[in-house]
Amino acid sequence: MDGVDVVNVDLGDRSYPIYVGTGLLDDGDALRAHVAGSTALVVTNETIAGLGYLDRTVKALTAKDSKLRVETVVLPDGEEHKNLEVLNAVYTRALETRLDRGTTFVALGGGVIGDMTGYAAASYQRGVKFVQIPTTVMAMVDSSVGGKTGVNHALGKNMIGAFYQPECVLIDIDSLKTLPDREFASGIAEVVKYGLIRDGPFFEWLEANVDKLLARDTQAIAYAVERSCVNKAEVVAADEREGGVRATLNLGHTFGHAIETGLGYGEWLHGEAVSAGMCMAADMSLRLGWIDASLKERTIALLNKCKTPIDVPEKMTVQMFMDLMAVDKKAANGKLRLILLKGELGECVFTGDFDQSKLQETLDAYVK
Amino acid sequence: MDGVDVVNVDLGDRSYPIYVGTGLLDDGDALRAHVAGSTALVVTNETIAGLGYLDRTVKALTAKDSKLRVETVVLPDGEEHKNLEVLNAVYTRALETRLDRGTTFVALGGGVIGDMTGYAAASYQRGVKFVQIPTTVMAMVDSSVGGKTGVNHALGKNMIGAFYQPECVLIDIDSLKTLPDREFASGIAEVVKYGLIRDGPFFEWLEANVDKLLARDTQAIAYAVERSCVNKAEVVAADEREGGVRATLNLGHTFGHAIETGLGYGEWLHGEAVSAGMCMAADMSLRLGWIDASLKERTIALLNKCKTPIDVPEKMTVQMFMDLMAVDKKAANGKLRLILLKGELGECVFTGDFDQSKLQETLDAYVK
Repeated sequence: MDGVDVVNVDLGDRSYPIYVGTGLLDDGDALRAHVAGSTALVVTNETIAGLGYLDRTVKALTAKDSKLRVETVVLPDGEEHKNLEVLNAVYTRALETRLDRGTTFVALGGGVIGDMTGYAAASYQRGVKFVQIPTTVMAMVDSSVGGKTGVNHALGKNMIGAFYQPECVLIDIDSLKTLPDREFASGIAEVVKYGLIRDGPFFEWLEANVDKLLARDTQAIAYAVERSCVNKAEVVAADEREGGVRATLNLGHTFGHAIETGLGYGEWLHGEAVSAGMCMAADMSLRLGWIDASLKERTIALLNKCKTPIDVPEKMTVQMFMDLMAVDKKAANGKLRLILLKGELGECVFTGDFDQSKLQETLDAYVK
Repeated sequence: MDGVDVVNVDLGDRSYPIYVGTGLLDDGDALRAHVAGSTALVVTNETIAGLGYLDRTVKALTAKDSKLRVETVVLPDGEEHKNLEVLNAVYTRALETRLDRGTTFVALGGGVIGDMTGYAAASYQRGVKFVQIPTTVMAMVDSSVGGKTGVNHALGKNMIGAFYQPECVLIDIDSLKTLPDREFASGIAEVVKYGLIRDGPFFEWLEANVDKLLARDTQAIAYAVERSCVNKAEVVAADEREGGVRATLNLGHTFGHAIETGLGYGEWLHGEAVSAGMCMAADMSLRLGWIDASLKERTIALLNKCKTPIDVPEKMTVQMFMDLMAVDKKAANGKLRLILLKGELGECVFTGDFDQSKLQETLDAYVK
């Protein structure tokens, strides 16, 4: 595998590789090395299958090993289908094709497919192995790494799930060529997050290179994806179960999840909601006196360049935010906790210890 | 807690207690000590709630700690409701009442409630703590101990789930007073299993004391429950994830699951299906020449005394058995593996290495 970079996710008692490169999807060796047993189930959605990626993956898996039996299941595309009912279709397919505990599930798609396949793997026969092949920026830089899996509930996003790590993550930058601009930009918003929470120089690199990224410069994309993976891997290694620092990866997510749930899943893309949420977090951080005005401005300016939302949708009310944020997973003993910027660029805190009136001010400022 | 016996389940990196005694349900101290956080969700079914156990549990939890907020959810009773749809009602209740990651779920009921509540705990917000309060023999001696949690799929029993251990198991023998005879007997069949697979002297004790048990002698029941828990705890400690010896706890279960799924969940009780399945396993073991005829006869005689089935239901065909057993979780690389008796009373093997024609002979002999 020439030109492939490997980022290792080290969890102490085990570790797994993230491969970042081009041409990886058709390279059966990389994938096959992480598929145990004599069967595999490739899970994808209609869009990805329609673009030919499913056939290519099955071919890559079976080309050099005709004894491997590869089954497939194609789910509807979109966050609104990330629920128990659609998840059940994965179990059904696995049972219909008599896949036993030794099988490997392969997630081929964006964050929704990765989260659902990972959770299906965590729960099918109480756990089988799985591999991530993310095909969106969002999945490459965030959701495919770190083992958070699950589905949504009508009353809250990602409320049903498990921590369950993949055998490997296979990132083929080429697969972004078919990604629509809106989804591409949504993923870049999540990349910006790493700059804000822990990697100031990367934020500055993004300020200088965002145009190249949006113009789909392969080298720029590969750099941004890999640097995001390194950041994510470091955080996950330090705190797999989100007892502390891992929560900082959710900058903007508490506001963002409220928007996603409030609008109905699928209306806004995850990264779009997070983009607006990060602006709100920056705004609130400034009101608390924790950052300079310039950092809020730079955050908004960069996200605006990404063409992701910097305001909240008109449908959202203050009450909706308060109700939906109250069920956030980061709440503790009924108290809301948020990730907020504090200090220089690249510094943040995860805390429930803030002046509640500033949260109210931010909501009042953002809600139409 | 006078007169309470404690069996410890030692899993190496952690352990938890099984309390066996009388009057435990109303003793808030024992329960409260294992409920972390400021909220709890008691999950039970209509039957158990109707018998007053839900109110008593809530009272025991709150009597000495008015700051603990206790929510409840009452599910329909029966194996046919052990599915994703009913499970979702638990998540909904938890979200409606805004229970956060620090909450504790309490399973109050039989095996279905225990398995579903445990799995809800394993997956709610990617994992919260839970406590088992089994109210049936089956749940006390088997399902509440060892961390196997999950729900059924239309195509197979317990096909969706997780290994997830409780904080403690609280067994109040008094709660069996309201258990119907049919369910009581079903649980005793599972007790017989421990004698067959690893505890010959216990099997002999059961042969001598089965009448006392069925007459609901409290001391006899307490002894049988505790000895079963000791056996289960030892097996689980040796092999939490069922890599080997734990599979032997499934004597009769591969046949039994096929019966349960084939009839439709809820038609036969789990222990009833296992009872018939153990007779089939003994029959097959004899045909293989692995046990003496007397052991098969003693097995059937003891289960017959328990008044649990020693034959398969008329609806079952050989083809149904073959199809349903093919998706058994213990299958590996498409090969069926069974727990069979081999040697003296109390000895068994878990193997896929047997003369297939003997399986066929057993099915032919048992299917009408």
